[in-house]
Amino acid sequence: MSLTFGLLLFPGVTQLDLTGPFEVVHRVPDAKVHVLWKTLDPVHADSGLGLLPTTTFADCPPLDVLIVPGGAGQVPLMADAEVLGFLRKTAATARYLTAVCTGSLVLGAAGLLRGYEAATHWAFMPFLEAFGATAREARVVVDRDRITGGGVTAGIDIALRIVAEVASPDAARTIELALEYDPEPPFGCGHPRRAPEPLVAAARAALEAQLAERGVRVAEAAAALR
Amino acid sequence: MSLTFGLLLFPGVTQLDLTGPFEVVHRVPDAKVHVLWKTLDPVHADSGLGLLPTTTFADCPPLDVLIVPGGAGQVPLMADAEVLGFLRKTAATARYLTAVCTGSLVLGAAGLLRGYEAATHWAFMPFLEAFGATAREARVVVDRDRITGGGVTAGIDIALRIVAEVASPDAARTIELALEYDPEPPFGCGHPRRAPEPLVAAARAALEAQLAERGVRVAEAAAALR
Repeated sequence: MSLTFGLLLFPGVTQLDLTGPFEVVHRVPDAKVHVLWKTLDPVHADSGLGLLPTTTFADCPPLDVLIVPGGAGQVPLMADAEVLGFLRKTAATARYLTAVCTGSLVLGAAGLLRGYEAATHWAFMPFLEAFGATAREARVVVDRDRITGGGVTAGIDIALRIVAEVASPDAARTIELALEYDPEPPFGCGHPRRAPEPLVAAARAALEAQLAERGVRVAEAAAALR
Repeated sequence: MSLTFGLLLFPGVTQLDLTGPFEVVHRVPDAKVHVLWKTLDPVHADSGLGLLPTTTFADCPPLDVLIVPGGAGQVPLMADAEVLGFLRKTAATARYLTAVCTGSLVLGAAGLLRGYEAATHWAFMPFLEAFGATAREARVVVDRDRITGGGVTAGIDIALRIVAEVASPDAARTIELALEYDPEPPFGCGHPRRAPEPLVAAARAALEAQLAERGVRVAEAAAALR
């Protein structure tokens, strides 16, 4: 049985939110993987990396799993009727709607996390409640037909869990070994609960403008849902 | 002081070998990052993902660090005079020549690992000796001006170590936290020493054709170096 995965690409995506899961799901035997955007023109990540969509929303076949990454460009998506409409339409038929990092806030803005437990990048966890979700601090959160998780690199863990759910645990194990996913973070400070306090304070300060901007947009998106 | 990074893109790259390190190094303050290939035409990974180069070999400025990823398309690179010439030219001026996964075999084919300790994807470790390198099984191997390491996802660990060397450990810590690099591999079988024996045997069997092809090409490339 062939599985069909879709990954949402958009201008300003954090590319590793997308490319991490892409590397995992395309290795599922017989998988079809669509990189989705409004058009087929090249799209540039928040880091500048240029990526090519494969499929427009209009041409997207029914998906088993949709994966929504995050990134600076996620903010305007929360008010983008075309994107939110595509997510809602997909939700009606897909087995799993999933998100990496601040992609969870786009699912939230589409009204698709209401009543679900969910996670997002550590710095943005407080925003989930505005969308009627229950924030749960975990690397990966599986709640019925939603799978979400932490920031950026968590996309690899999330995608392996997705594969375990829709293909099989053995398929996921095979991919974990092929990708040599035996990580050794050199500094062991990848989450605030493990990082020295001054580092966390500096990271929060650096994110201040992003937090303020997202706060306003999350409030607007949450209001639009009511 | 601005640092200049180059990542080698090529047809058939394993995109996460490149996109993992890209996400890390572009976050170094004031970093310039070049995605390098012969032309500026889109390049497709072994998974089909389309990526855009930013800079041709001809237009590449002096680099502080070159990162060479691996992938199925790495095999023809071992006999590609233009690529090997670019690597040798870069080696004369760059502070670090580095590789992820089977990218190490391209450095080897260019004669740039002779006398160095190095690593590569677990399945391809035996090929390093043909290039005069000493294979060392480690997630990241730093030996003077060469930094290499394990397969695919190891690129994230490798890039964080690169940042610690050329920028500062604090810059690397900040990036580790921003990327929420606090991994939880769901199955804990990302290296043969941790994986169940039947899984490893099946993975080796699945790689048999690739191992045979690389064996021939490595022997040819090693002979060409003599």
